[in-house]
Amino acid sequence: MFEIINSELLGYVAATLTTASFLPQAILTLRTRDTDGLSLTMYSVFTLGVLCWLIYGICLANNIIIYANAITLFLATLILSFKIYNTIFKK
Amino acid sequence: MFEIINSELLGYVAATLTTASFLPQAILTLRTRDTDGLSLTMYSVFTLGVLCWLIYGICLANNIIIYANAITLFLATLILSFKIYNTIFKK
Repeated sequence: MFEIINSELLGYVAATLTTASFLPQAILTLRTRDTDGLSLTMYSVFTLGVLCWLIYGICLANNIIIYANAITLFLATLILSFKIYNTIFKK
Repeated sequence: MFEIINSELLGYVAATLTTASFLPQAILTLRTRDTDGLSLTMYSVFTLGVLCWLIYGICLANNIIIYANAITLFLATLILSFKIYNTIFKK
């Protein structure tokens, strides 16, 4: 029981830290809508990867993997949408 | 059994995609050793988060979480070392 609580806590800390480290970049991009510094290919691969992690978390019924990747997927999809919009309409 | 294989495969795809999307930035930073564009705070938070994910993976005995985060932790630690070195010695 003690071990389960500890590893759950550790998972939530891990999820919070990696999501928190992604937030400032996401907020900056969403505020400025400047996506020139982002690679479309790499961002597409990243977003697809996060989607796969989310589905993997659902398969395992692991709430930590689900929460962490749901938040990141939401932000990454928004940023990718701006990137695709800018790529198509601002050439 | 079929479900286990599928979710394992999905996990490996997820791990490969998110690690692959991190690689070009990592290679660029390691080749140029230019870390001006990176935030020390955010990179420290990210590296600590990846370390927590790795320990979480070890707690769960989940090979996919272990492999994905071990590779990312190795690269992130290298980049963070360059960032700390540049911050201290290039002022």
